[in-house]
Amino acid sequence: MNEKSINFAEKLSKFAEHWSPKVIAEMNDYQFKLVKVQGDFVWHDHKDTDEVFIVIDGEMAIEFRDGEVRLGKGEMFVVPKGVEHKPYAENECHILLVEPKGVVNTGEAMGELTAENDVWI
Amino acid sequence: MNEKSINFAEKLSKFAEHWSPKVIAEMNDYQFKLVKVQGDFVWHDHKDTDEVFIVIDGEMAIEFRDGEVRLGKGEMFVVPKGVEHKPYAENECHILLVEPKGVVNTGEAMGELTAENDVWI
Repeated sequence: MNEKSINFAEKLSKFAEHWSPKVIAEMNDYQFKLVKVQGDFVWHDHKDTDEVFIVIDGEMAIEFRDGEVRLGKGEMFVVPKGVEHKPYAENECHILLVEPKGVVNTGEAMGELTAENDVWI
Repeated sequence: MNEKSINFAEKLSKFAEHWSPKVIAEMNDYQFKLVKVQGDFVWHDHKDTDEVFIVIDGEMAIEFRDGEVRLGKGEMFVVPKGVEHKPYAENECHILLVEPKGVVNTGEAMGELTAENDVWI
């Protein structure tokens, strides 16, 4: 095995659009996805799985029906399954999501922010 | 939910020992573990699972029987299940591991570097 490491900055340089997760790695049946976020996402939940947010660069928040959590570079948070949440970021923020393969970014709240799934870069 | 984010630097300030994974988060049946590494680990594999290495700070390498991969800050690598590997770092390096709950750090190569499992900080 003489494979190369996966470099976040190099992968992030390959796309610009917001709220459109790009898969960079798979571990068992889980995927690691880079996302650039800015502005408001939609309220949604994931009925069958927790979801991990890791901030690579910038700042964001995850709003809940009864509060919110703020995340900066070098911080992570686990949104429990079934908990409604709405991510947002005032300025562009780069994050790494970890979740099972097949999870749709908007959960069941399908709409214009629903991204194509399983897009690798 | 008014929980706080999990801050890697704050968690890393809470321990000093090497090769002793500390759990900081759980997602479904997976755990996120911070580890400080320096020097040579032991050859081992994990028969039942892939293992993710994400470098938070510093540099490390993962040696394989037929090559190696070098990892710096902001890089990750997935070691496939069943593949023998030996992590090492010339200088102290801080990493985030992602793997299923219950994985022993040395696989079946039990010895003095085998760490207590499921230790949270």
